[in-house]
Amino acid sequence: MSTRITDVDVHDVRFPTAAAGDGSDAINRGDYSASYVELRTDDGPTGAGFTFTNGRGNEITCAAIEALAHHVRGRTVAEIAAEPVAFWRSLTADVQLRWLGPEKGVIHMAAGALVNAVWDLRAKLAGKPMWRYLAELSTDELVANIDFHHITDALTPDEAATLLDKGLVGAAERLAVLEQDGFPSYTTSVGWLGYPDDKVRALTREAYAQGWRAMKMKVGGPPADDLRRARIIRAEIGPDALLMMDANQVWDVDEAITNMTALAEVDPYWIEEPTHADDILGHARIARAVTASTGGRCRVATGEVAANRVIFKQLLQAEAIGVMQIDACRVAGVNEVLAELLLAAKFGVPVCPHAGGVGLCEYVQHLAIFDYLRVGTSLDGRMVEYVDHLHEHFVDPVRTRGGRYLLPTAPGYSATMRPESIARFRFPDGPVWR
Amino acid sequence: MSTRITDVDVHDVRFPTAAAGDGSDAINRGDYSASYVELRTDDGPTGAGFTFTNGRGNEITCAAIEALAHHVRGRTVAEIAAEPVAFWRSLTADVQLRWLGPEKGVIHMAAGALVNAVWDLRAKLAGKPMWRYLAELSTDELVANIDFHHITDALTPDEAATLLDKGLVGAAERLAVLEQDGFPSYTTSVGWLGYPDDKVRALTREAYAQGWRAMKMKVGGPPADDLRRARIIRAEIGPDALLMMDANQVWDVDEAITNMTALAEVDPYWIEEPTHADDILGHARIARAVTASTGGRCRVATGEVAANRVIFKQLLQAEAIGVMQIDACRVAGVNEVLAELLLAAKFGVPVCPHAGGVGLCEYVQHLAIFDYLRVGTSLDGRMVEYVDHLHEHFVDPVRTRGGRYLLPTAPGYSATMRPESIARFRFPDGPVWR
Repeated sequence: MSTRITDVDVHDVRFPTAAAGDGSDAINRGDYSASYVELRTDDGPTGAGFTFTNGRGNEITCAAIEALAHHVRGRTVAEIAAEPVAFWRSLTADVQLRWLGPEKGVIHMAAGALVNAVWDLRAKLAGKPMWRYLAELSTDELVANIDFHHITDALTPDEAATLLDKGLVGAAERLAVLEQDGFPSYTTSVGWLGYPDDKVRALTREAYAQGWRAMKMKVGGPPADDLRRARIIRAEIGPDALLMMDANQVWDVDEAITNMTALAEVDPYWIEEPTHADDILGHARIARAVTASTGGRCRVATGEVAANRVIFKQLLQAEAIGVMQIDACRVAGVNEVLAELLLAAKFGVPVCPHAGGVGLCEYVQHLAIFDYLRVGTSLDGRMVEYVDHLHEHFVDPVRTRGGRYLLPTAPGYSATMRPESIARFRFPDGPVWR
Repeated sequence: MSTRITDVDVHDVRFPTAAAGDGSDAINRGDYSASYVELRTDDGPTGAGFTFTNGRGNEITCAAIEALAHHVRGRTVAEIAAEPVAFWRSLTADVQLRWLGPEKGVIHMAAGALVNAVWDLRAKLAGKPMWRYLAELSTDELVANIDFHHITDALTPDEAATLLDKGLVGAAERLAVLEQDGFPSYTTSVGWLGYPDDKVRALTREAYAQGWRAMKMKVGGPPADDLRRARIIRAEIGPDALLMMDANQVWDVDEAITNMTALAEVDPYWIEEPTHADDILGHARIARAVTASTGGRCRVATGEVAANRVIFKQLLQAEAIGVMQIDACRVAGVNEVLAELLLAAKFGVPVCPHAGGVGLCEYVQHLAIFDYLRVGTSLDGRMVEYVDHLHEHFVDPVRTRGGRYLLPTAPGYSATMRPESIARFRFPDGPVWR
């Protein structure tokens, strides 16, 4: 822990996914990219972290990481671990850089990349995978890592401690469940908007054969197309498997209510991002309408671009979501995710992390496992998103079996990218982009 | 209008204000800066726009402007004016760059700089100051410039048209009022947190002598200090002048309620940014509490970092604000501000624009005047913030008399910076920074 961070290297890494239609939805058509950070140390491993972006603009988040890097360079891991909130605020409440958010978008994502890289380093130094490193921290240590500023009206440090203490009970039994079965997940690989019907049908059939019993499709195209594609998937998976829908924010509030009434026919399990991600009151109205029109069978889900813990707090306070979708690197890293997991537990809402892109599955598996072991303490309604893209670029890629994530075992946060992938996909000078 | 934008020049311009304590508040201590854009044209004037930042990180917003510039370069003003929402969305809903917001922070501010530069160019080509250019657009033209996506649950195009048509009635009389008296304003130059008591007292006395009858102080330091400074100002200005307070988001929700109860003694007119800018439900709770504890005399105000029209929509829907503080370049420029002014009018909330920093007074005077002429149609409770900093760097600086803004007369949006100021304060190569 006397290990000192001597330098911060930032890499602009981009994968040319847009051309294939992978990841296409109602709003995005991206080249999955990472603003990738390596924390060099004087006598220890390299800490790795990144924030995910959608291609163009990855140089902007990289520039933001560079602008924040002086808060990390030269610090020892022991210093950071001793005053974790002070460290976190040095990144998120910098007196000049905060203006660029505040606590949202580019500057907050950049903070997330650095914060996560520090956590990766902490876990590597402890010789544990991140989920285990977190789960074995004491309640006091976990609480000390959370900035409660602006959320005390919903969650106090004492309430957080009570939840975490409660999470100690039965943790060993829950771990045994995961060691045996893995963590439940669902697949988003079957229904991107860019795929033709035949490809959707074939991919759905294939996924079902592989054991997946929960699948997500994109909606937000012409309503008749959405319904036709949904019927194809429902016909393939039968009445019992779960079918989730993701509108990627394209609808207005009333439009979401109308369209989900029509789509109720195929029994959706959730509607994700039905409208603008900032619209807490809109999500609450949609949630009430969808609950009414489906007899409570369909939930509203959101969170992959929820800017920070204050947005999540309100989504919960307003009863706007029945599923909370945290992201590992949209917010300012593990510290903020801890607050979000505890908020969800306080309000009794299950957490189903957002993944896909590049490296997001690698990150969030740790968070979901920790949540189950120490916070949420249930698998009921919990699933981690799974997309079968780009795992080959990571040193410790996710492993799945029969629609479930297997427990990561390597020390760290599974965020370390293969050097040859960084070299090949580096923008603009890697061979793929030259 | 056949004028074509041939190139986009971006300048990182920073003024070393942090050392003087100007602009210091509970959260920020900045070197006022502009990510400054010049749109070069083939046969017309240069369009000028900028977004304001707080010093470090100005290179990030500059990089974001560069990343968006290809949507502007090569376009004619006529093309943009013919399909203004399509143009606006090319910047705010770019399929790859949107992920970096969405519609918030760095990427949205960058869009605002470009959008405003195009409006400056449009007004210069029309030979009118921006306020007059906007006020003389037809209702149909104004409505055609607004993206109603995600706000139709609060404001439809038809409702906007009705408000704008109503705003035509009496517009000439209202203009005559402004030509005679100027636009009301208030000063924020008296009570920055960085100033000692004696300086606060002297500045307050000076401002009162100059005719100011509305002044704003910063709060959010130790509560006893806030009260002591507030008493100094109240003693200087007497019981009738308005005293506004600005906490710059430092308080938690319950803390804001407690502190404003104590500060009620000095009869504050509004409390600005009492908590995190994203906390719509928190602002609503504070508004209810402050209304109760002051018998309705004190209002909640916010908006200078409200990310976009969806946040403003909700602040109004939740009855969270009694004063709406738009900013000219935090959101994506004039088009989005039009939506916000109309939302405020629909909900009957007065607009008091945020200014200060560098160039913000120059920008927002036009918006406030347009609002009075065509949308809000009243001066009741309307004031533009005024800070006496850095106006000398603009070709067409604001002019005030007796606490009121005088009508700008030069064509454009008053955003054009003096070339010698750009050269001198350019970061990092200008002589001030070398």
